[in-house]
Amino acid sequence: MRKINIGLLGCGTVGTGVAKMLIENKNLISSRVGADLILRRVADIDVKRDRGLTFDDGVLITDAQQVVDDPEIDIIIEMIGGEGIARELILRAIEHGKPVVTANKALLASQGDVIFKAAAEKGIDLAFEASVGGCMPIIKALRESLVGNHIKSMTGILNGTCNYILSKISDEKSSFASALAEAQANGFAETDPTLDVGGFDTAHKLAILACLAYGTGMNFKDIYTEGISRITPLDIEYSSQFGYKIKLLAISKDHGDAIEARVHPTMIPFDNLLSNVNGSLNAITISGDAVGDILLYGHGAGMMPTASAVISDTVDISRNILSGVNSRIPLLAYQMDHIRHIPLMPLDEILTHYYVRFSALDQPGVLSKIAGILGNYGISIKTVHQKGRKTSGSVPIVMLTHLSKEADVRKALAEITALDIVGDAPVLIRIEDEDG
Amino acid sequence: MRKINIGLLGCGTVGTGVAKMLIENKNLISSRVGADLILRRVADIDVKRDRGLTFDDGVLITDAQQVVDDPEIDIIIEMIGGEGIARELILRAIEHGKPVVTANKALLASQGDVIFKAAAEKGIDLAFEASVGGCMPIIKALRESLVGNHIKSMTGILNGTCNYILSKISDEKSSFASALAEAQANGFAETDPTLDVGGFDTAHKLAILACLAYGTGMNFKDIYTEGISRITPLDIEYSSQFGYKIKLLAISKDHGDAIEARVHPTMIPFDNLLSNVNGSLNAITISGDAVGDILLYGHGAGMMPTASAVISDTVDISRNILSGVNSRIPLLAYQMDHIRHIPLMPLDEILTHYYVRFSALDQPGVLSKIAGILGNYGISIKTVHQKGRKTSGSVPIVMLTHLSKEADVRKALAEITALDIVGDAPVLIRIEDEDG
Repeated sequence: MRKINIGLLGCGTVGTGVAKMLIENKNLISSRVGADLILRRVADIDVKRDRGLTFDDGVLITDAQQVVDDPEIDIIIEMIGGEGIARELILRAIEHGKPVVTANKALLASQGDVIFKAAAEKGIDLAFEASVGGCMPIIKALRESLVGNHIKSMTGILNGTCNYILSKISDEKSSFASALAEAQANGFAETDPTLDVGGFDTAHKLAILACLAYGTGMNFKDIYTEGISRITPLDIEYSSQFGYKIKLLAISKDHGDAIEARVHPTMIPFDNLLSNVNGSLNAITISGDAVGDILLYGHGAGMMPTASAVISDTVDISRNILSGVNSRIPLLAYQMDHIRHIPLMPLDEILTHYYVRFSALDQPGVLSKIAGILGNYGISIKTVHQKGRKTSGSVPIVMLTHLSKEADVRKALAEITALDIVGDAPVLIRIEDEDG
Repeated sequence: MRKINIGLLGCGTVGTGVAKMLIENKNLISSRVGADLILRRVADIDVKRDRGLTFDDGVLITDAQQVVDDPEIDIIIEMIGGEGIARELILRAIEHGKPVVTANKALLASQGDVIFKAAAEKGIDLAFEASVGGCMPIIKALRESLVGNHIKSMTGILNGTCNYILSKISDEKSSFASALAEAQANGFAETDPTLDVGGFDTAHKLAILACLAYGTGMNFKDIYTEGISRITPLDIEYSSQFGYKIKLLAISKDHGDAIEARVHPTMIPFDNLLSNVNGSLNAITISGDAVGDILLYGHGAGMMPTASAVISDTVDISRNILSGVNSRIPLLAYQMDHIRHIPLMPLDEILTHYYVRFSALDQPGVLSKIAGILGNYGISIKTVHQKGRKTSGSVPIVMLTHLSKEADVRKALAEITALDIVGDAPVLIRIEDEDG
C-alpha cells in the first residue's frame, strides 16, 4: 500500500490528539484512503512529557525545522499556534513545496494575506478546517457544499469558553467573574482569558469565514468586537423574560457593496436553535440563496474534536497527493483573481434591534424624557419594562427597540446618559430576531 | 475559460432548481470553480411547461438517451427518480464513462450494489449528496469530514413530510388523518403518502448512510421500519408530560459485529436538539469516537435546497475533471476491498427504553397484574401514570420502562394483551434517552 509521510509540528493538546488518531485509527484511515498515513516525525520542545502514546524511536524530536526540511515528509501539520515560529515554519514548508494543515486561526486572521499568497503562488494546498469551529465541517461547507449559493449571512457561536461562561451565568446566576473562575478551574478557559472572553478569538474565526463566504480579504482587526465581561445575571434575567437568550455571536451579512461583520453578546429568541447550544459547544447558521438556513453544531475545541478536523484535512491532501493533484479547490473558496476588497460596513450604519437598560431616578417624567430623546432620533420602542417604585435611589428601565440604526441609538444614549436623572451608562445589547 | 458540459435528465421540481442555479448563479459558480458549467442539454417528456427559465434553442429535448449518448456531455445529472428508466440511464452513462450525479435514494437503497459496482469497475465518479437530507452535507461529512472517526451512531430526522405532520399533530392536536390532509394541501405530502409516512423514504436514506458510515452493504428492505400513522395527540400529550417529543427517527448504532438500524416514531428529550427541529426541516446527529456528537440541520427537501446539494456534487466532479482525476474518494467512503457484510442486529435484540400505553379496565388489581407480567420478563418500570377513575369503561395506564430488550417487551405485551382486563392492543413507542 502507498505511504504518505506526515510531519507534525507541536505536540501539545491538539497535536497529541492528531498523533493519537493517526496511530490508533490507522487501519480505519487506511481502509478509507487506500494508503497508510505514517506519523514520520513529531517536533516538540518537550520530548519527555507522557502523552499516553508510544512513538517509534527517532520520531519525536525537538527541531521543528528539521521536520519541515525532511525531503521524505509529504505533509506538514502545524499545531504550534501563534504568529511567530509557526508563521516561519509554514512559509518554509510552502517554500519547499510541502502542503500544510493548520488550525492557526490567529495567524490566518491577521496574516492570511501573506500565507495564502505564498501558498497560491506555489500552488500548494493549505488546509485549515480546524481553525474554525473545531470538528464542525464549516470550511468544507463554505468551500464545497454551498459552492452554488450566494451566502447571505452567517450567525455563529464560535467560542466554547464564552458559551460555557454565559451558560453558567444563565443557569446559576453567577457573576461573570465567578463563572470565569469556574471555567478556568475546569479547563474551559485560559489563565489569560482575554483572547476568548474579549471576543477576539471569535473575530479571528469570523474573519476567516467571511473571506471564504464572500470572496474578500478581511483582517480580524477591522471587525467590531465586544466581549462578554459586562454581561450580568440581571440582564440575562430580563432577556429571558422577553423570550431571549444571550450568546456571544459572530454575525456577518452580505449587503452586496459592503459586508457587515461584528462580534458581540447578542439576544436571540428561544426558538432559534442557537439559543439551545449550551456549555462549551459551538454552532453556526449559514444562510444561502438556495439552501435557506443550514446549521452545523459540534465541539468547537478540545483535543479529539479538533484533531478530527485536522485528520480530515490531512486525508483531503493525501487524496490529492495520491491522485497527483494540487490546488483542486481554491484556498479561499474563490479563484484568486475573483477575490476583491469588499468594504466592511461601519458599525454606525447597521440596522438591528436593541435591548437597553437604563438606571434612572424613580421620579415622574423620567420615562417620558428618555422616550422623547429616543423618538427624536427616530428610534421606535417596542416594549418597556419598568420595575416597581422604590422609596429612593434608581430603578432599572428596560426597553426593546424596533429596527434602529446603530448611530442613532448611540447618539440617543449619549444624550440620555448626560441627563441628571440617569445614573450609570446604560447597558446596550443587540438583538437578532427576524420577527422582532 | 474551460467549459464543463452538463446533461440534465428530468426537469421536474428539483431538476428545474438545478437548471435555475446553473443559469442564475453561473458567474458565482465560475468564480469558484475556475470553469464555466454549461447546461448543454435538458431532457424531459414535458418540453412545453413553463419553468420560469429560458433555455437556449435545442437545449430542452424529450430524449434522455440522446443526452446520455452525447459525446460532448461531461457530466450527467439524473433527476428522473424511480428505479426503472433512471437505473438504465445511469448504467448507460457509466458505460460511456460519464460521471453521474443523482438524488435517487430509492434506487441506491435497493439496487446500490449494481449501481456502485458498475461505477467502481469503470472508475467513474457517482455522487449522491442530494439523496439524503437535501442540502445538509451529510454524505460529505461521512466520506470526508469524519474520515478519521469510527462512527458509533447516527440519529436523524430525515423525512420532512413526517416531521411536518408530527409537528402539526403536536402543535394543533390534530389527528394523523387531518394533519396528513393539511400536509397534502400545502404540498408537503404526496397524493400517495405511503413512501413518506410509512417510513420507507427514511429507511432508504438510513441504508445509504449506514453503508457509508460502517463500510457495509445494506438494503433498506432489511431495516425495521414503522411509520407515523398510529401516532395520536393523546400519546403526544403524555410524551410531553414526561419531557419528550415524538419524532420519526432513523437510528443506527455500531455494535462491532452487528449494526443496529431501525426507523420508527421515537420519543426524545426536550433538551435534545433534534426535538426542536420542527416543520419540514431535517437534522441528524452523528456520533464519532473523536468528534463526540456533531449535528447537521437544514431543509431536507424542496426545489432549491436539494438543487444546492446537486450543484455541490456537480462542482466536485467538475473539479475532478479539471484536475484529470477520477475516483479520488471511494464511492462508499471505504475502499471497495474493505467493504464487508456486517449483519443487521435483529430488532428483538435491541436494548432501549419504552413508552407503553395500556387501555385497561379500571378495577383493583389491574396495575399489579400488568406490572407482574412485565416483572416476569425482567422489564423494570421507571414511571407509571394512571388517570383518575371513571365510573365505567377503560382507563389509560402509561408506563416508561428502564432499558429493556425488545423481545422481552414484545412477549410481555402479548401476554398482557391477552388478559381480559386489557382492551385494545397497547401502544408502544421507543425512547432514545441517554439519561433515561
